Amino acid sequence: MRIGVFCSGGDAPGMNACVRAAVRCATSMGHEVVGINRGYQGLIDENFYVNSAGEPRMTARSVSNIVQRGGTILRSARCPAFLTEDGMLKAVRNLKKHGIDALVPIGGNGTFRGAAELIKRWEGRVVGCPGTIDNDLLGTDYTIGFSTAVATGVEAIDKLRDTAESHQRLFLLEVMGRHSGFLALYTALAGGAEFACVPETPTDIPGIVRHLEQLQKTGKKSIIGVVAEGDEEGGATILQKKLDDAKCTFSTRATILGHIQRGGSPTPDDRMLATRLGDFAVKSLDLGATGVMAGEINSRCVLTPLADTFAQHKPLPSELIDLLDRMSN
Amino acid sequence: MRIGVFCSGGDAPGMNACVRAAVRCATSMGHEVVGINRGYQGLIDENFYVNSAGEPRMTARSVSNIVQRGGTILRSARCPAFLTEDGMLKAVRNLKKHGIDALVPIGGNGTFRGAAELIKRWEGRVVGCPGTIDNDLLGTDYTIGFSTAVATGVEAIDKLRDTAESHQRLFLLEVMGRHSGFLALYTALAGGAEFACVPETPTDIPGIVRHLEQLQKTGKKSIIGVVAEGDEEGGATILQKKLDDAKCTFSTRATILGHIQRGGSPTPDDRMLATRLGDFAVKSLDLGATGVMAGEINSRCVLTPLADTFAQHKPLPSELIDLLDRMSN
Amino acid sequence: MRIGVFCSGGDAPGMNACVRAAVRCATSMGHEVVGINRGYQGLIDENFYVNSAGEPRMTARSVSNIVQRGGTILRSARCPAFLTEDGMLKAVRNLKKHGIDALVPIGGNGTFRGAAELIKRWEGRVVGCPGTIDNDLLGTDYTIGFSTAVATGVEAIDKLRDTAESHQRLFLLEVMGRHSGFLALYTALAGGAEFACVPETPTDIPGIVRHLEQLQKTGKKSIIGVVAEGDEEGGATILQKKLDDAKCTFSTRATILGHIQRGGSPTPDDRMLATRLGDFAVKSLDLGATGVMAGEINSRCVLTPLADTFAQHKPLPSELIDLLDRMSN
Amino acid sequence: MRIGVFCSGGDAPGMNACVRAAVRCATSMGHEVVGINRGYQGLIDENFYVNSAGEPRMTARSVSNIVQRGGTILRSARCPAFLTEDGMLKAVRNLKKHGIDALVPIGGNGTFRGAAELIKRWEGRVVGCPGTIDNDLLGTDYTIGFSTAVATGVEAIDKLRDTAESHQRLFLLEVMGRHSGFLALYTALAGGAEFACVPETPTDIPGIVRHLEQLQKTGKKSIIGVVAEGDEEGGATILQKKLDDAKCTFSTRATILGHIQRGGSPTPDDRMLATRLGDFAVKSLDLGATGVMAGEINSRCVLTPLADTFAQHKPLPSELIDLLDRMSN
Repeated sequence: MRIGVFCSGGDAPGMNACVRAAVRCATSMGHEVVGINRGYQGLIDENFYVNSAGEPRMTARSVSNIVQRGGTILRSARCPAFLTEDGMLKAVRNLKKHGIDALVPIGGNGTFRGAAELIKRWEGRVVGCPGTIDNDLLGTDYTIGFSTAVATGVEAIDKLRDTAESHQRLFLLEVMGRHSGFLALYTALAGGAEFACVPETPTDIPGIVRHLEQLQKTGKKSIIGVVAEGDEEGGATILQKKLDDAKCTFSTRATILGHIQRGGSPTPDDRMLATRLGDFAVKSLDLGATGVMAGEINSRCVLTPLADTFAQHKPLPSELIDLLDRMSN
Repeated sequence: MRIGVFCSGGDAPGMNACVRAAVRCATSMGHEVVGINRGYQGLIDENFYVNSAGEPRMTARSVSNIVQRGGTILRSARCPAFLTEDGMLKAVRNLKKHGIDALVPIGGNGTFRGAAELIKRWEGRVVGCPGTIDNDLLGTDYTIGFSTAVATGVEAIDKLRDTAESHQRLFLLEVMGRHSGFLALYTALAGGAEFACVPETPTDIPGIVRHLEQLQKTGKKSIIGVVAEGDEEGGATILQKKLDDAKCTFSTRATILGHIQRGGSPTPDDRMLATRLGDFAVKSLDLGATGVMAGEINSRCVLTPLADTFAQHKPLPSELIDLLDRMSN
Repeated sequence: MRIGVFCSGGDAPGMNACVRAAVRCATSMGHEVVGINRGYQGLIDENFYVNSAGEPRMTARSVSNIVQRGGTILRSARCPAFLTEDGMLKAVRNLKKHGIDALVPIGGNGTFRGAAELIKRWEGRVVGCPGTIDNDLLGTDYTIGFSTAVATGVEAIDKLRDTAESHQRLFLLEVMGRHSGFLALYTALAGGAEFACVPETPTDIPGIVRHLEQLQKTGKKSIIGVVAEGDEEGGATILQKKLDDAKCTFSTRATILGHIQRGGSPTPDDRMLATRLGDFAVKSLDLGATGVMAGEINSRCVLTPLADTFAQHKPLPSELIDLLDRMSN
Repeated sequence: MRIGVFCSGGDAPGMNACVRAAVRCATSMGHEVVGINRGYQGLIDENFYVNSAGEPRMTARSVSNIVQRGGTILRSARCPAFLTEDGMLKAVRNLKKHGIDALVPIGGNGTFRGAAELIKRWEGRVVGCPGTIDNDLLGTDYTIGFSTAVATGVEAIDKLRDTAESHQRLFLLEVMGRHSGFLALYTALAGGAEFACVPETPTDIPGIVRHLEQLQKTGKKSIIGVVAEGDEEGGATILQKKLDDAKCTFSTRATILGHIQRGGSPTPDDRMLATRLGDFAVKSLDLGATGVMAGEINSRCVLTPLADTFAQHKPLPSELIDLLDRMSN
């Protein structure tokens, strides 16, 4: 088999580890790998990874020393052209032209939507890997990049806490998550924050203010709150204003992490997950699977139809919401 | 209930997060918490945590700002005295004297052995939490501290790789693990090492040398191997000599991480696990559980009889051993 | 001598190392130390650090295990009350009441302005230490906290670069610095950014756009720019808009670091500087110095009159501005 | 001019930043750069860096995105062949053959010894840059890589302290430094260690034991000592035994950092220093300098004859030795 590998959509730490695993599994099984640069755009543009011997082919050596790198050596892109019938047909022509039998797209729901459309027009096989910091895909407990993004948020909290303790303040940390509160909730729990505002549950501002007053009475000197950018009450800047208006007794500062969360050397967890899934995706292709995403559920590698991974909202574990409450007394 | 919390045995990152969770869960439910310093030794010596108001009691405020700290504010110790009947009876007397109804010991198999003996002589309840970097306890997928110890090892590999790449060398990294290869195997996988030597499987030195020769032929410039201190062929220093004797073509350097692996701010994963388990241990005590360890299996909190956690060797996942092989071509 | 030590104004990483050094130097010389909580406010409120023996006194043991901690165990505060004659006289009364002979204030220009006023009304001695991330004080090459704040900014750039490389983008990173470009310039240089916008020099937006176009022609795939919050063209968000309006060909994203820069474990450099200056301040007091700040110039400890440290704008080294230009071709 | 750049000897973090600066300064001035792989060995083997266009030439783009990377993209090597007359003449022939007019060798005293010999046989110019973690070269306050190696050691101490505090132990940390105590002394000071054993001063074991007993009486719970591998009493393992034999009351553990200190992303300080010196070396070549090393003294770039950089032992600042004493009461 000749397997094409690419990354698409927002990049996520661990994508390189996933590419590495796919390539090394494939070469260990005797398959060939073509690296496609810049996602679907590269498929349309015939933009392929060229190895040190000048060939458009990835070998085990092409992926040496990348397991620890953030970003992706194949570069990622969003590709509006691919959403058109024309774009898709051009991609299919190029797949045929270059003798590619199968694809391992690494990305999020946009990537898989595209892949699901592609296989309607192409007889090759597709097994995707979930690469997104949002952890908003069904079919896997965690997505590649989520662990590192949480670590980045937690590290920010650890730093804010130094100042918060010194100055008796409330810090609001805004993390990514337009529709999903996973990043905010996990960052809050692991960071020891007092509350999290997530899109999935109503944010009760007077309730927060009362809760903080009570904490202050017990001697609590500083407060950290984590806010998902997509919280229905608004991001950290708006929330800061609303808390001030609601006469919150703590002096409040907002901090916005932004794209920093997408970068950084992947955590061991992300590398492990990426390695297992990149490997499993190729093994699954080898066994004939197609139209599915490789995921890890309860420590076991599983396949889920692409369309099922983004069909529904991945629910936040309610016991973790309760746990955060219990931890902030 | 009046609940005693302590840490015992080798310390592990995340113990503080576990203490915090136990305390906050307990206070949120109306229980009292006594912090016992220095493990079983502190129980024998009546050495209790004293809060800022001068009382021998932990409040929600006693555990502020510790979720991110390595080590343990209750300090840990190994306690030979406790292994004697005298020691144990003294501990029991002190538990009664101070009106302690239940215990949350945080530690490894030595800690739980002690706890299992204790409840034969005391009518109080015990729910333990697995705090050890070795991940060698059954009844939980991971132990508190393992994730951070892996991260420390992986970080070391990332640094060694810089030099290995620059100089074309083989670096052997020795990690902890007298009887268990979990740390070595996970560190190798996440670090992108070429091989791991673990106590559970025979280490085939001529085989390693042949494998490295093949890698060199493909253009591989540097090699990292991870060695568990308890590997049957010996630690990194001995292995280095054996590889040299077997005419390994790479110039070899050994590095020994030692106690560095026990320290450091816990990873988000360790904080999450510690928080969940500390909380779950107290909730389980509240529901009447005793003689068990709180663990997490397949993302769910579960209880396992103390004796079952150390009765058998926790097996290394064989699919991860295979995966490492596949990744090092 | 009975020496009072306090931190005032915005907190800075390394303040704890400075407190530790002042305390240990003082105790090694036979002086007594009183820790004053929350800066000038604590002086007015008689809010003193209480050691584990319950005494309002800092011993060598009071500062164990804090050299590595961000924030300050004495907590910092801004104190409007101190700016009034009443506040100042109350502070003087308390200094006399508690037999304090000398002060080591750790802070920035606000702190030293206060101290300069104080010694007009009090016969005790004052030797300050420069603790501010802004590096905007004369009389020292660097201030305590600057090195760590640069490191935090550089780490952010390293993460942004992962994504920038993957997506071919321009990232603007806003760092602190209302009136001073030190943080922005050093962060840009050490981070390998393409440009820095600082309050000290005019920001030429069409010039930046032309420069980026040229870089793009040479194959440059991603751009990082560092913006001081006090740049005369505005912070990162405003600059992003202006670059878009000027038809910058790179897709631009703004990121705002905020208070994260104040936290974190101090770098070795900040710990060294803080240790040297805290020690030198006490030795200088012992020798009779007063009304001065301890600083380090050309690796040597020196004293500068308090008023001279904030009388003029500390100029950016112009050779570093040229260097950044040369590095971004 | 056609300038050859290479790294030689033990690699040091910041070498990449130095290569980048030399390249970009050169290209900004209209010079050409040839990257020589693997130090003097590559000069003998005509092993040159090949850019993405397939040419043996480094452009500004060749050094994109490397400022933050440990190791060196040009790889380093020790080269016994170069020490022979034959090797040296071969190198000279190759320099002429490839039209190289000048060299920027980045390395330590071995590198500069070689360069000093080379210019006796070759009419080209040489301006070196000090790249070594040992900081053992005269003509510069600090060498490139020293700051990062200190940071790695300090980070290790921060982790050991967690366990030391929890268990009341003495940890000995062995750092590199066969003949020089800079790394050990700075690591000890910034890490807050209680003592440092360096080759430059006699290590008084009974004195250490007495000092530690006194500290224990004041309530000190844990001790960290830093040992240079070249201390005259031996490395950490031997010292551990000697302390035990001298009846040290603390339970002692030895840890050996090894090559980990050579790796890691360079600190901002190392990047700044490397950037300034790489740039300054090229500018100096352009102005006609030769036979010298570029260094930074008192924040100013200066040139020192190559032979003077290794002619004498670089002395440890005695005031820092005193400072460490004062800090450990």
